[in-house]
Amino acid sequence: MRRCQLSAIQSRIYSMNETPELASFLMDAAAGECAAPEAPLDAAPRHGINPAVTLLDVTVAPPNAIHTDGDAERLIRAISEANGLIPEIGFAVMTTLQARLRAAQWRVTCVIALGDGRQAPRVIDLWPVDPARRAYGLALDIGSTTLAAYLCDLMSSEVIANAKMVNPQVSYGADVMSRVSHSMMYPGAHLQMTAAVRDGVRRLTAEVTARCGIEAAEVLDAVVVCNPIMHHLYLGFDPYELGQAPFTFATSKALHVAARDIDLPIHPLAQAYLLPAVGNHVGADAAAVMLCEDLHCSEAMTLVIDIGTNAEFFLGNSKDIVASSSPTGPALEGAEITHGQRAAPGAIERVRIHPLTKEIRFKVIGSELWSDEPDFEASIRGIGVTGICGSGVIEMVAEMRMAGLIDPTGRIGTRDETGCAACFADGRTTSVTLYHCKRHIYVTNNDVREVQMAKAALYASLRLLMDDLGVSSVDRIVLAGAFGSHISVKHAMVLGLIPDCALEHVSAVGNAAGAGACVALMDVEARRQIERAVQHVRNVETATHADFQAYFLSASDIPNAEDRFPSLAARVVLPEVAFGKRSGRKNPDRMRGRQ
Amino acid sequence: MRRCQLSAIQSRIYSMNETPELASFLMDAAAGECAAPEAPLDAAPRHGINPAVTLLDVTVAPPNAIHTDGDAERLIRAISEANGLIPEIGFAVMTTLQARLRAAQWRVTCVIALGDGRQAPRVIDLWPVDPARRAYGLALDIGSTTLAAYLCDLMSSEVIANAKMVNPQVSYGADVMSRVSHSMMYPGAHLQMTAAVRDGVRRLTAEVTARCGIEAAEVLDAVVVCNPIMHHLYLGFDPYELGQAPFTFATSKALHVAARDIDLPIHPLAQAYLLPAVGNHVGADAAAVMLCEDLHCSEAMTLVIDIGTNAEFFLGNSKDIVASSSPTGPALEGAEITHGQRAAPGAIERVRIHPLTKEIRFKVIGSELWSDEPDFEASIRGIGVTGICGSGVIEMVAEMRMAGLIDPTGRIGTRDETGCAACFADGRTTSVTLYHCKRHIYVTNNDVREVQMAKAALYASLRLLMDDLGVSSVDRIVLAGAFGSHISVKHAMVLGLIPDCALEHVSAVGNAAGAGACVALMDVEARRQIERAVQHVRNVETATHADFQAYFLSASDIPNAEDRFPSLAARVVLPEVAFGKRSGRKNPDRMRGRQ
Repeated sequence: MRRCQLSAIQSRIYSMNETPELASFLMDAAAGECAAPEAPLDAAPRHGINPAVTLLDVTVAPPNAIHTDGDAERLIRAISEANGLIPEIGFAVMTTLQARLRAAQWRVTCVIALGDGRQAPRVIDLWPVDPARRAYGLALDIGSTTLAAYLCDLMSSEVIANAKMVNPQVSYGADVMSRVSHSMMYPGAHLQMTAAVRDGVRRLTAEVTARCGIEAAEVLDAVVVCNPIMHHLYLGFDPYELGQAPFTFATSKALHVAARDIDLPIHPLAQAYLLPAVGNHVGADAAAVMLCEDLHCSEAMTLVIDIGTNAEFFLGNSKDIVASSSPTGPALEGAEITHGQRAAPGAIERVRIHPLTKEIRFKVIGSELWSDEPDFEASIRGIGVTGICGSGVIEMVAEMRMAGLIDPTGRIGTRDETGCAACFADGRTTSVTLYHCKRHIYVTNNDVREVQMAKAALYASLRLLMDDLGVSSVDRIVLAGAFGSHISVKHAMVLGLIPDCALEHVSAVGNAAGAGACVALMDVEARRQIERAVQHVRNVETATHADFQAYFLSASDIPNAEDRFPSLAARVVLPEVAFGKRSGRKNPDRMRGRQ
Repeated sequence: MRRCQLSAIQSRIYSMNETPELASFLMDAAAGECAAPEAPLDAAPRHGINPAVTLLDVTVAPPNAIHTDGDAERLIRAISEANGLIPEIGFAVMTTLQARLRAAQWRVTCVIALGDGRQAPRVIDLWPVDPARRAYGLALDIGSTTLAAYLCDLMSSEVIANAKMVNPQVSYGADVMSRVSHSMMYPGAHLQMTAAVRDGVRRLTAEVTARCGIEAAEVLDAVVVCNPIMHHLYLGFDPYELGQAPFTFATSKALHVAARDIDLPIHPLAQAYLLPAVGNHVGADAAAVMLCEDLHCSEAMTLVIDIGTNAEFFLGNSKDIVASSSPTGPALEGAEITHGQRAAPGAIERVRIHPLTKEIRFKVIGSELWSDEPDFEASIRGIGVTGICGSGVIEMVAEMRMAGLIDPTGRIGTRDETGCAACFADGRTTSVTLYHCKRHIYVTNNDVREVQMAKAALYASLRLLMDDLGVSSVDRIVLAGAFGSHISVKHAMVLGLIPDCALEHVSAVGNAAGAGACVALMDVEARRQIERAVQHVRNVETATHADFQAYFLSASDIPNAEDRFPSLAARVVLPEVAFGKRSGRKNPDRMRGRQ
């Protein structure tokens, strides 16, 4: 049921016009083998629309000399008679209550925040009755790199506008751990970062509301999802304790915070709801993904991977759920690669190597053409070919494996060994040229090693979760996050980044965290479900697990030295090649140094 | 029970050093016949100390790698194990929670606002454990003329400091109705008045806390009492509707308001509690008097009169209570009297006329001596005799009646008719000299008429309340308010200002509103009692009542043309005199004109 609503919300999110800043993230969304968002199963949500704020039209009895109670008391009585609620009246409403009731001739629309059982319902505004009035809510996904805002119509459950921007905190550190380090070095620095991210949220909010021509004060509710460190940095909590064992939250529960306490420029009496965290390193964004994917209601053993600078993943079904997280390192995002770069125009994002001719072709962000098509050079005029982004790196290494340019250990064969003209001697190893026109863009064996280590760390953690639940395979894989929707599922599996699974059961849901936030915004029951569900999620510390190193070493092979990939094997035949000295394998010392 | 606590609180309030501004109000407190506050029945309150804020020392379990919940969750668990509460954590507390718990080595004093059933308990601060720490609260009596603040120790139930000042709003109008008129004439003016009174409260609060050497943030709770119009003007509500029929409140219920919403400079997460109003014109100050006087629990038919610029009064016992209010006019405060003035050094505040010699003597504020004592002139050097204040006017008129200088209709006899040398012809009527040295201070027949009208309006309202309850006499009279404690009970009864009653059952309780606020501050159960009690108080509109005029005319006589005063007659014999044409009586037209 939830899934239907979710898909509808997601499809609406995907159909939005993206803001210029984020265009680069989305340019390859249409590309062929890239995992596309699931088609919506149902255009209209079957789930009830059940927001935390309701509008109620009432007629208030005018005062008379006999009944000497106050206007507030008669307003409360009118509300109570209309729907049984006995609300409190927000103080700011009370200050202008009398004039507003009279101006509206005793017929008003009450904006009522329904509370959560611990808080009483509260009238947060009074409007003149107007059939055209709407109620809006704001879902915020506060990521380490990207802030995303979704403006929702709470009455129709529609996402009517969204916007994204780079988290202004990136100037304090590219990833969350560097921001925690920054705050540890400079006392009070976390408050500067808090101010920076809140300012970003303010600008995003202004953008989505302006685009729809609505006032900030018409936005009556907000739901916020973020990882633990962003959670603390957004709320103004010092993230110090999250930077050291035992990685303790200030709070891991769901929170209601007054919008004004976090400088959120929506209705001044509105509240923001923060989803609960799932575990030490798995925050409210993961809870949003769980909510989005109905993990806690599903029979199928489902693996959810949210890949970003940090990867968060959980595995389970309605019976049991385990969660963990792992730093993926920058390689999967294109950094620490000789010609790596962020996804931006000019970055190579798709790569194909012909299995027989070994000819290499690619696509860059900003052009629809493959590099071997006639007008390619013309199509990239002014853009150029500037480097390789994360999805390009993954495809390149996977294609090299499929074309037999590297062996399972990741060693690149020489031009003679592979028969590939792009291979060239580069010191004691071999590198592979992708493009050599105005610039020379190539992949070194060291680049391949970086990718191997990043994917091995991730895979080892996933395997430990599978061990924890006693399963040897998964029924379904869901890739969440912007990155997850831009990588090719097949290539990720060839690389051994994700476990073996029938490809048709692997899907990318894009910003599931954002979609989950939208669901929580539109349905308070979903909030309660997820609050209950996260209490049963067990957090597994994988990096310190005794078996991690062994799994990591096996996973360093492409796809894996130990695990078989039967579903993949039915679709892709990997050449059995071996280059150089077999005893060399990878350099174990160097591997240990990374861990 | 409550009464015991109350008396203890009152006695503490009375024993306080008053601030200079208010010294003039209190200078005659020691004077002989002035009703003194009741002696405390019990020095220590028998009532439980039951404030809305509690301090709780807890030891929080440190985090470990196995239990991954947040610090907030472990803090809540520690509180719950200690006393069963499951509080929320105030957001401002959460922002520094982690550092505070660690700095205190996991042993903290939790400051918990207990909520009221609709609001959950809330941790509003965390302190390092310190055996010397105290919890303070602030009781505020916001009167039209005077602001009073009482700083209370919530743990011992003691009033440890108080301060008073003139309400800065007086620059916008001497009484509440003129302030309402001002706000009606100048849109937004009520907000200026709100700012003025809040600034006064800020200064008072700073004064009482500074005097005790405590920080504003150590004041954890506040209770506010005020009349309906001051209630609106303090909270920032436009008093417009209270200035016209049907005199509708924004709200008449008890209110919890965040201290920061009303600029109250106490703990930033503290709340202020406003007592409920009793009826249209009878506000939270009256509720505080009821609370103070246990009207709702007593068998005795009790009349409470709070005389100020406005008089509020209620009558009843545990079975039934009626309330009303009436503008007393300025005569009882010394204004609109030829030589009337506010209570200040130089004002005549006591008057005695010898029944045989008709010699007049008096006391002025600022001197301990009677005017016929040898050193009197020396004692008033630098002060002088400047006029007659409210209590002086009441005593003068009552003494004139007792000495036979005026007849029951209020007509002053000539020097020949009375044998009093102080009487002198003043146009067509007679005036009476009080003092004729550097200045000539006298009372005209017109002044007497003003007093008659003022007291007649009050008495007529009181009689209508008695009719409403079907009683012809009262068992007990309580005079509340600063004015009530400075008038002579006997003289007030001779004047017919209050109904007949055994003098020993008439008491003045001074600032009962302030004392009631202190009780509500120290005992949340008292708040609930008064909230229930006020629901059963019936408001009686007296000024528009069909019988008002008849009672008013009877009450214009001194003491009364119709009502007998048997208890008074047992103590005081009033001479049977009649001056001038009997047909003249008072001028009925003029009387009607005033009504």
